[in-house]
Amino acid sequence: MAFEMAQKVLFKHCDPAGIVFYPRYFEMINDCVEAFFDHLGHPFEKLHQTGAVPTAEISTRFTAPSRHGDQLTLGLDVTRLGRSSLGLTITAQCAGETRFTASATLVYITPEGRPAPWPEALRASLEPHVKGQENGE
Amino acid sequence: MAFEMAQKVLFKHCDPAGIVFYPRYFEMINDCVEAFFDHLGHPFEKLHQTGAVPTAEISTRFTAPSRHGDQLTLGLDVTRLGRSSLGLTITAQCAGETRFTASATLVYITPEGRPAPWPEALRASLEPHVKGQENGE
Amino acid sequence: MAFEMAQKVLFKHCDPAGIVFYPRYFEMINDCVEAFFDHLGHPFEKLHQTGAVPTAEISTRFTAPSRHGDQLTLGLDVTRLGRSSLGLTITAQCAGETRFTASATLVYITPEGRPAPWPEALRASLEPHVKGQENGE
Amino acid sequence: MAFEMAQKVLFKHCDPAGIVFYPRYFEMINDCVEAFFDHLGHPFEKLHQTGAVPTAEISTRFTAPSRHGDQLTLGLDVTRLGRSSLGLTITAQCAGETRFTASATLVYITPEGRPAPWPEALRASLEPHVKGQENGE
Repeated sequence: MAFEMAQKVLFKHCDPAGIVFYPRYFEMINDCVEAFFDHLGHPFEKLHQTGAVPTAEISTRFTAPSRHGDQLTLGLDVTRLGRSSLGLTITAQCAGETRFTASATLVYITPEGRPAPWPEALRASLEPHVKGQENGE
Repeated sequence: MAFEMAQKVLFKHCDPAGIVFYPRYFEMINDCVEAFFDHLGHPFEKLHQTGAVPTAEISTRFTAPSRHGDQLTLGLDVTRLGRSSLGLTITAQCAGETRFTASATLVYITPEGRPAPWPEALRASLEPHVKGQENGE
Repeated sequence: MAFEMAQKVLFKHCDPAGIVFYPRYFEMINDCVEAFFDHLGHPFEKLHQTGAVPTAEISTRFTAPSRHGDQLTLGLDVTRLGRSSLGLTITAQCAGETRFTASATLVYITPEGRPAPWPEALRASLEPHVKGQENGE
Repeated sequence: MAFEMAQKVLFKHCDPAGIVFYPRYFEMINDCVEAFFDHLGHPFEKLHQTGAVPTAEISTRFTAPSRHGDQLTLGLDVTRLGRSSLGLTITAQCAGETRFTASATLVYITPEGRPAPWPEALRASLEPHVKGQENGE
């Protein structure tokens, strides 16, 4: 696991059925990615001065519901580092049960919105976290 | 297209990069599904008195950014009607350009959270909308 | 009433108690203000190219809960037009019952964040809507 | 100060102007109140099994903008403990600057939505935090 983030299920996350409303999970996922970049020393607030890292695609399976008060652990793995793309998996666990598994691709873009190579320092920080594969385009 | 919903990109949807923050797209998707059930005569507020229709999985590709003020059209198609599941695709278009394509599976569940057959009246409303296939489990 | 906007209470607005989670009301209020400026011919997406209209203060009383499916009508009144400020009241009604009453002050600011006089064309559009008072600083 | 909560300004909180979109502040305020009840040993997820604590009114002044990456400290004070009501002030500070000041009234209600006296154990936990006044209705 490249990175972990604790996230309690709060009142604001839950719907009338008493479980997490799934768009709120995507806010948690975005928070987890943001916290990972913080942890790498490349916080989003700095990164966004010269580029952006939009999510190009994301696939998610919600395998069990989460309830108000549940203590989730979001785990992030780097599955692929391309020239300007980044493959991630993010899972949420609670007491040994998987709540969701997401697989996402992020892309580094310029302020004009065009894909661009990862800045060298950022690439160097990401590389050690790529899981079980040679990186490359 | 089984159903369409207009959605202007509002201030609240946009991030510091001036484009839609992708978790907000999932709120739009949920609104579109809710409006489709309304249109079928089975509004969510009534449906949730005796069951729920959580999203079991969703895969989304964001193919072009949307900006504040863009007039989106969300289009919904029913791709599969199972015993207790429902396959949907939801796309967003603006001026002929696709902004995202999502493919989702919803499941009808009891208040206790167990998958259950679609209520007969609801199934009968959904069936005419299944696209290009025989429905069945 | 200077402006009205219909807003059905959707699934996404509601909390585990089955009523609107109050921060969602503030999104509705912002949507209503945005729609009012649209209606005036000064859409936010255009206005934000040369300035911004942040909310400087807002006071809200939630007088009755709103439930999933309720058909709200948000009504907006202009109570005061200052050199760079705008006083508004926004209320939500459902079937003759008031759900909330909000009183807000917006300020027109430059891209650098400094209060500035309302652009002439915008001021001219706002003036006819000022309710029961002479406008001025 | 009865309670403090750190909150970094995240990407999801910010609008196209690059500052916190004010409805997101109300989510932070709700999170802070929820964390305070946690701290008291009466977590919302438990409290909501037998009642609820909706916000009856809230007045907020936004005195300076907050930007992505700002490290906010939310401070909560209990200003009044009534039979079934609770007066709170919540402020956000960053590097000695006040970003907002909110004054709210919460009400304890039964599952049927009627105001009810605070449960004894909860009242006993709140009382020591009432600031500079005798409590009472």
